[in-house]
Amino acid sequence: MQKILLLGSTGSIGENVLNIVRTQKEFYKIIGISAKNRSKELVQQALEFNPDFVLIGNEQLFSEVKNALAHTKIQVFSGEQNLAKLVRECDFDLLFNSLVGSVGVLPTIESLKKGKDVALANKETLVVAGEFVMNLARQKKAFVRPVDSEHSAIWQCLVGENEKEIDKLIITASGGPFRTLPKEKFANVTVQEALNHPNWKMGNKITIDSATLMNKGFEVIEAYHFFGNVKVEVVVHPQSIIHSMVEFCDGSVKAQLGIPDMKIPIQFALSYPKRWKSEFERMDLAKIGKLTFELPDFEKFRCLKLALDCLESGGTSACVLNAANEIAVEYFLKEKIRFTQIPEMIEKSLEKHEFFSHPSVEMLLEIDLRTRNFVRKEIEKLC
Amino acid sequence: MQKILLLGSTGSIGENVLNIVRTQKEFYKIIGISAKNRSKELVQQALEFNPDFVLIGNEQLFSEVKNALAHTKIQVFSGEQNLAKLVRECDFDLLFNSLVGSVGVLPTIESLKKGKDVALANKETLVVAGEFVMNLARQKKAFVRPVDSEHSAIWQCLVGENEKEIDKLIITASGGPFRTLPKEKFANVTVQEALNHPNWKMGNKITIDSATLMNKGFEVIEAYHFFGNVKVEVVVHPQSIIHSMVEFCDGSVKAQLGIPDMKIPIQFALSYPKRWKSEFERMDLAKIGKLTFELPDFEKFRCLKLALDCLESGGTSACVLNAANEIAVEYFLKEKIRFTQIPEMIEKSLEKHEFFSHPSVEMLLEIDLRTRNFVRKEIEKLC
Repeated sequence: MQKILLLGSTGSIGENVLNIVRTQKEFYKIIGISAKNRSKELVQQALEFNPDFVLIGNEQLFSEVKNALAHTKIQVFSGEQNLAKLVRECDFDLLFNSLVGSVGVLPTIESLKKGKDVALANKETLVVAGEFVMNLARQKKAFVRPVDSEHSAIWQCLVGENEKEIDKLIITASGGPFRTLPKEKFANVTVQEALNHPNWKMGNKITIDSATLMNKGFEVIEAYHFFGNVKVEVVVHPQSIIHSMVEFCDGSVKAQLGIPDMKIPIQFALSYPKRWKSEFERMDLAKIGKLTFELPDFEKFRCLKLALDCLESGGTSACVLNAANEIAVEYFLKEKIRFTQIPEMIEKSLEKHEFFSHPSVEMLLEIDLRTRNFVRKEIEKLC
Repeated sequence: MQKILLLGSTGSIGENVLNIVRTQKEFYKIIGISAKNRSKELVQQALEFNPDFVLIGNEQLFSEVKNALAHTKIQVFSGEQNLAKLVRECDFDLLFNSLVGSVGVLPTIESLKKGKDVALANKETLVVAGEFVMNLARQKKAFVRPVDSEHSAIWQCLVGENEKEIDKLIITASGGPFRTLPKEKFANVTVQEALNHPNWKMGNKITIDSATLMNKGFEVIEAYHFFGNVKVEVVVHPQSIIHSMVEFCDGSVKAQLGIPDMKIPIQFALSYPKRWKSEFERMDLAKIGKLTFELPDFEKFRCLKLALDCLESGGTSACVLNAANEIAVEYFLKEKIRFTQIPEMIEKSLEKHEFFSHPSVEMLLEIDLRTRNFVRKEIEKLC
């Protein structure tokens, strides 16, 4: 019986994890769950899966959750700052980290410190602290399992292969809703338009990141760290059927394909090294008919270019990139800044920040905070 | 130092093997080579690679080869019937079987009997005697390495995976030169038109088989035997970039891709389980732009349908299919029969033949011979 600690259990990834665990109850036990604000869903999940621990991030919702579970033996905690503590003190076999934002970094680190595997859906962990986290994993012989469809694709292509024989990784990008939009129209993109992703149904923040292609930039940075610091390229593939590829040193390319659905990668992160029989919808290439590919347009998608530059410069750059982007997107969603001001805010933050090449995690979290404040102030100046 | 016995060394596969071995001389030694008719090329290869043995299939060319190599220590043999004997008596580590036709069956069997791995480019081995050959390989713990691009693709996708978790194999077909030709024009297809394959440069016999899609039918039968008797489907993919795919039980699909070039699969059959750095031309999906897929048209490509039927019925069927096809294609190339008479001859042979469900190899070779004679007589009746 594998014990799973699932952080971020009420998001779309978290719910999928529980859907899969529900079909594999003889092998998996949910030992703990957490949510930020969705207290009702969290209580419902707790009543169904009967974990030992529940954590609600928003402290104002503590009594609500506590009361709803008063008749059970489930222990209730609150406060996002206590997520890392929960990881440290809870007895589990696999941390499934589907937290959103840089709050996901410390829980990953605490799990790896204990030598426990992490199924990592939290993007910020590797974007902000990739070098540190992967070194820690190697040192502790704990394994970081990709969950994102692109990284899962690469991971699946690498099963049985030697990482030293990789020439490059090729990450596919749908191109988002603005792939064919002329550059001059980018400034007037509305929130509604940006939230209308052609292939994937996801949360708001990540959907905007997909529209700016920042999400792809993050994935490139993550892939670089996940798979041993190798070369990573992006190819735009609007149908999102090929989820990513690996080119080996002999010129052979392997790809993983499927309909755009997170169920397969989420299940593989749980079932690895096995594959479980599923009733998930199957891909039918003859029905799909056509897969197309093109180079990304860095002029239109400045966020992607900024991310690639940050990977190149390393150190604290990607941390600044991520923090500045998070705040800029937050304000774009509130209609306080334009779509094209997202990369502008990031550029300003990168120019402004003091660069360190080998930062500690504490330093990164400090820079993360400082960058957020900087961007907030910059935006307030505009309003 | 791995010792390689290379049968069919002057064909396009054989030459590619030698090109690759030439770059890996510190690891590989060519211990023996053979050709059917190309005596000059064979002598040239022998002088360069200095094998212990040389065999020329056409006995009338024996003295020519013998004399040309008189000043060397190389032993010269002749006669295709002696290929199996050479395999039996020669000391080697890997048999690279790139013989064309059913003459390739016995050398494979002799190698497996000695527990020696076979890199198998000879299609007929598994089409004619797949069940027997793979059972023998399992029993002798010898490994049959695919060389064909489609089977190599599947093999590469299966590295590190569990064969029991395969749902189906998806073999891609270029569709050949007549993919878009209307059905009513098939009867008037000329030899010249049929030899004009859009993607691959190959020998005449296999190029005709690619035009009728019989080649794809053979590949389906081979794949079924290679990979543990699993379900195999065909999808037409005119660009020949995805070389084949595997769908697993969780719904995940893996594919191997590359430009249409036999160099990678040939090298992988030699380098396995490693990959060697190569300067082979790389695939560029953004440049290729588009990959398309469609279902095969069984009305137009009756040979493919016949092959799938033979896989279904098993036993001696595929042996008859192969033998009848070989003679029919021979006569089509001589312009003695029409393109559409190829499947007609095969159908007649299948109807006529006495079916056995578990034939011995001797029985299969006897049926092979009988079918050839039957088709020859049928065609002579027409002339």
